[in-house]
Amino acid sequence: MSQSSKLAVDAMGGDHAPEAIIAGLDIAAERQPQAFFLVFGDAERLQPLLAASKRLTGRYELRHCAEIITGGMKPTVGLRLRDSSMRRAIDAVLAGEAGGVVSAGNTGALLALSKIVLKTLNGIDRPAMAATAPSAKGDVVMLDLGLNVVYDARNLVEFALMGTIFARIVLGLPSPSFGLLNIGSEEGKGDETLRSAANTLRESPIAGQFHGFVEGHDIAAGTVDVVVTDGFTGNVALKTGEGALKLVGDLLRRVFNGGPLAKMGYVFARGALKRLKETLDPRRYNGAVLLGLNGVVVKSHGGTDAEGFAHAVDVALDMVAHDFNSRIADALAAMDRAILSDEPVTNSHG
Amino acid sequence: MSQSSKLAVDAMGGDHAPEAIIAGLDIAAERQPQAFFLVFGDAERLQPLLAASKRLTGRYELRHCAEIITGGMKPTVGLRLRDSSMRRAIDAVLAGEAGGVVSAGNTGALLALSKIVLKTLNGIDRPAMAATAPSAKGDVVMLDLGLNVVYDARNLVEFALMGTIFARIVLGLPSPSFGLLNIGSEEGKGDETLRSAANTLRESPIAGQFHGFVEGHDIAAGTVDVVVTDGFTGNVALKTGEGALKLVGDLLRRVFNGGPLAKMGYVFARGALKRLKETLDPRRYNGAVLLGLNGVVVKSHGGTDAEGFAHAVDVALDMVAHDFNSRIADALAAMDRAILSDEPVTNSHG
Repeated sequence: MSQSSKLAVDAMGGDHAPEAIIAGLDIAAERQPQAFFLVFGDAERLQPLLAASKRLTGRYELRHCAEIITGGMKPTVGLRLRDSSMRRAIDAVLAGEAGGVVSAGNTGALLALSKIVLKTLNGIDRPAMAATAPSAKGDVVMLDLGLNVVYDARNLVEFALMGTIFARIVLGLPSPSFGLLNIGSEEGKGDETLRSAANTLRESPIAGQFHGFVEGHDIAAGTVDVVVTDGFTGNVALKTGEGALKLVGDLLRRVFNGGPLAKMGYVFARGALKRLKETLDPRRYNGAVLLGLNGVVVKSHGGTDAEGFAHAVDVALDMVAHDFNSRIADALAAMDRAILSDEPVTNSHG
Repeated sequence: MSQSSKLAVDAMGGDHAPEAIIAGLDIAAERQPQAFFLVFGDAERLQPLLAASKRLTGRYELRHCAEIITGGMKPTVGLRLRDSSMRRAIDAVLAGEAGGVVSAGNTGALLALSKIVLKTLNGIDRPAMAATAPSAKGDVVMLDLGLNVVYDARNLVEFALMGTIFARIVLGLPSPSFGLLNIGSEEGKGDETLRSAANTLRESPIAGQFHGFVEGHDIAAGTVDVVVTDGFTGNVALKTGEGALKLVGDLLRRVFNGGPLAKMGYVFARGALKRLKETLDPRRYNGAVLLGLNGVVVKSHGGTDAEGFAHAVDVALDMVAHDFNSRIADALAAMDRAILSDEPVTNSHG
């Protein structure tokens, strides 16, 4: 069994753990016939759940952990728990027993533990969180989604570099375009940090993929394949977009329950509307990747269900299979160090 | 004719000026029987357009201006044009000839000119731009939408104060709730500026209306009546939400053209879908107000059509009729100055 198809799973993280986690592995096991799961958590609770899944038979190894890092727990507190399911799952990646780790648990703890245990990639100042979102031209990659509320121009440049490589893998594009999120597309827009990052990127090896500044509406328009921004803006933008999509979904439900005619309309359009719903299903976009670490770390939304967690597992296996981290390392090596060593213009936001 | 129903209109600003502007006045003239318009711009181009509108007969006064501040023009350049339609329209407000001004022109120039000519309200450090957006619980107010990419905690507190008074008028709510946009709702989230603003607001006269921190998805959910944030985040969030709504609209159009069954479904659901479209029609939300100035200044989207511009006119007349600025002044007086004079924690963003 090659390490590259082995995944460490924190079975105790998330609002619906461990049931939704194991049910998610059951779904993923069918889609990913080579996958093998190292399952970390409370053996007493997990044993029956795992035993109940035919698909998982012979596809997992259960490792008991006595402790759990809860969602409300301060990362600093979570770090002290040596036998937590999250910690042990990350340790397995360090030990080379698994190619990556997936957790739906405490984001702050997952980031802190990943940085301490796996360390940041050589040449990367700060990790960033990336995920895909729907657009008029197919999925787009967004980062950072919340790790960096304090950042400088160099960080934005690194996010762009990691984001484009991430997009090559998850979107399957040979040379993804990217833009820096701003409040206008003109060169003079934004603050010094954004302008400095843009100048560096115009001189960088990925200058050819750089579309320049993009605005909020460009995300859903699919103007670029990768939208690069700081962790505060990215987090707000992603959640605002999700909220807007949910609003329309709720309004549509009301529309088609609005009267006999509308109900009749739904009967006819059901199939097409179902496809639309699937296209925009947030579970299809679950699984944010922590970029810039020595190891594949995927964060599933804490509130996700089995289907959503299965998608996060797909993302993790995809990253592992494509050896994402060494590709970033190579790209960093290729990238002229000089452009990454400008005087940082630090911003604090969010 | 009372000044309060007189509006100064920059007829030359915006992508579709002057045609869309005059057509917008024609629509507004019917909805606002008391309104009278001081129309500033190129008389030769405006005369025939105005003459062609029956509704506007006797409802306007045309004032020729030789110059135009274009959209691409640097504000500093626009400021030098003494006879621009934008400048002259703002001057009319200062002169007391009009209760407010509406322009679809250059935002930077409109802000700069308004600050120079009308001045900022006593007690307000920086003006902010506010507008309404759709939510599951009716319209919500958002600010700042782009004026302040550099700001401090005091500015956020002032935005909250102005935003809640604005919401009282445009949403007709006696005591609107408001929240500070952040990447989490827990108290410790965000940076020092946000936490300091939150602490000040918890001690303020509007503490009872303060919901605390809200996240991106809370905007469309309607969790609060007023979403307070900096100009960078607000601009990105608003445009991201608009983009997401447009995406679903486009996808729905595809859905209902997807095949005979779907087309049939549309026939039945047409009425209900039309109401949904109207609810989310961006033109219904056109007309952003520059809060914190000695005078009502409304910015229409530059790319808007007649219907959208008419809505911006409605907003302006609404603000004038409710004597918005003196209400802000009163609220400021009521507000303990002490809480506005904390050591500022300045942020630069966007």
